[in-house]
Amino acid sequence: MNHSFDYKQTIVARGDLAMSPGKLAAQVAHASVGTILHPENNQAKIMSWFHEGFRKIVLKVESEKEILDLRDKCEVEGISYFVVTDFGITELNQNTITCIGIGPDLNKVIDKITGRIKLWR
Amino acid sequence: MNHSFDYKQTIVARGDLAMSPGKLAAQVAHASVGTILHPENNQAKIMSWFHEGFRKIVLKVESEKEILDLRDKCEVEGISYFVVTDFGITELNQNTITCIGIGPDLNKVIDKITGRIKLWR
Repeated sequence: MNHSFDYKQTIVARGDLAMSPGKLAAQVAHASVGTILHPENNQAKIMSWFHEGFRKIVLKVESEKEILDLRDKCEVEGISYFVVTDFGITELNQNTITCIGIGPDLNKVIDKITGRIKLWR
Repeated sequence: MNHSFDYKQTIVARGDLAMSPGKLAAQVAHASVGTILHPENNQAKIMSWFHEGFRKIVLKVESEKEILDLRDKCEVEGISYFVVTDFGITELNQNTITCIGIGPDLNKVIDKITGRIKLWR
């Protein structure tokens, strides 16, 4: 593992749902894992990202529509993604879209999609 | 994907670090991905978990020592795990241990390790 970063993954989650910190963390992890285990995704790219230290950045939007717009952009650009829908067992209504994982891919590719979205602090 | 759950993963994170929600989410995702991409881990088990819907639970402890004790228990029991150490680029001191991902494995196996630890809400 080295410390230069060519690749990253962004996970964009919904601030408007007022998820608890633990709920948010589980949803973001779900998005990240979902992109990785999806059988259609590029395993060579995933392993390059992994060997760099698999950097990931959590970002915030305020609506479901913004998540769906990001999904559409990924489709158009051919970038791997995974949309998380919560079953609604604990905090949320059934089948609530909570976040989207995008990548991993080259920084410049990811920034075309999520470069203007604010960090979730 | 069906809705019966034989497998789960738990991610145990440190409450004493006062991480922001976005930081916590990124660290938890890192732990989850780390266990999955680690080359020594059981890929058949991971895929069983994935096809169930890859359930994950976020738990909270209040010290580094508790994370290290969990790591030791996983070693003794032969359960897969991944300890996350933060580089300290943003919020934390350099090389801070933030969390541990445990499993995925059968519920009863995971519960032996983390069954008494409280949920992170």
